[in-house]
Amino acid sequence: MASIAVIGGTGALGKGIARRLAKAGQAVTIGSRSAEKAKAAAEELGGLGYAANEDAAEGKDVVIVTVPHASQGDTLRLIKGRVGNAVVVDTTVPLVPPKVMRVQLPAEGSAAMQAREHLGPDVRLVTAFHNVSAHHLDSDHTIDCDVLVFSDDVDARKTVIDLCPGMGLRGLSGGALANSAAAEALTSILIYMNKTYKADGAGVRFTSLTDAPPIP
Amino acid sequence: MASIAVIGGTGALGKGIARRLAKAGQAVTIGSRSAEKAKAAAEELGGLGYAANEDAAEGKDVVIVTVPHASQGDTLRLIKGRVGNAVVVDTTVPLVPPKVMRVQLPAEGSAAMQAREHLGPDVRLVTAFHNVSAHHLDSDHTIDCDVLVFSDDVDARKTVIDLCPGMGLRGLSGGALANSAAAEALTSILIYMNKTYKADGAGVRFTSLTDAPPIP
Repeated sequence: MASIAVIGGTGALGKGIARRLAKAGQAVTIGSRSAEKAKAAAEELGGLGYAANEDAAEGKDVVIVTVPHASQGDTLRLIKGRVGNAVVVDTTVPLVPPKVMRVQLPAEGSAAMQAREHLGPDVRLVTAFHNVSAHHLDSDHTIDCDVLVFSDDVDARKTVIDLCPGMGLRGLSGGALANSAAAEALTSILIYMNKTYKADGAGVRFTSLTDAPPIP
Repeated sequence: MASIAVIGGTGALGKGIARRLAKAGQAVTIGSRSAEKAKAAAEELGGLGYAANEDAAEGKDVVIVTVPHASQGDTLRLIKGRVGNAVVVDTTVPLVPPKVMRVQLPAEGSAAMQAREHLGPDVRLVTAFHNVSAHHLDSDHTIDCDVLVFSDDVDARKTVIDLCPGMGLRGLSGGALANSAAAEALTSILIYMNKTYKADGAGVRFTSLTDAPPIP
């Protein structure tokens, strides 16, 4: 069992991830800007831990950040000094509302590289969960979507890949942190497909891999 | 039956695409920098048409460009005045050798946006086939990979999507030309997965689409 904080855990993605992790037996703490809001979400999910974001981030094995792109910088700088040696998983997709079906990567190349700038070189940074719909996470079914996991820290990457099966997901390594751009861009394609091909949560699977983890 | 030129059709990707199109009954012309080289590939594929690139590009319904990123600009400028109203399909992935497993998109955002600059605003530009391995194209089996097709010209996009089933592929719209960045970036992930998960041509499938074309 790992101790895991979900920062911004009152949003749809954060709640969905927290729900799946708790069901898998992990010790989950919901973080939010206000501890009161975190408390409401934690109770809704069946008595999870809760705290203000900066307190939730402290003393955990894994800290998962699920906030909108506009809040990414403030949130990461807020928790930077509190995460210690935890694996920090940034899930940020650099959508530019209202054109969320249009790929518009930032000048740094990706939200992942922006996260690296916000956190500095010493935090164990991973990115993941860009392509999984909150709609599916808020259910009990196995999700027909692979999770691409990116990091320059191979052990940290493995930690996150290994969390996925318990959540009904297959985690796959996508390589270096900079490669996160691919999954971030793909999210706009999936939102476009939701509209174009009438999906209520399009996903992505990687094929022809002979040596990949099984689909759970 | 459409008349289709494959520019750079002596390379692995170009030959694979030409092979599949010819098998589907399309009238295929192989283009290469030298007509002699084009002739050799055209004979190897069973008596297709052939010509130098700039001549092959003229008078066709569809012109598919399959050249390395380093040759993209020269090739597109060479054929620009010859393609007329043809649908031009650029397949360029902006790999930066030797680090081909690393996503490194160009400053313009994508090879697609570079192609638009090379061709000017009037050419009917589509991008596609970024994620299909040449290895699989050079076979007769159905390929377990979707083809993302991008364009700002909806009719041109449909033309290319409709070519896919005959090639043993499912074509899906990925939306606007700028969205091509997602498929281009994904190619480095697939190359990485080939090595990491022992694939001889990793692919990608989109899931949970209720209103998409069937998998052929």
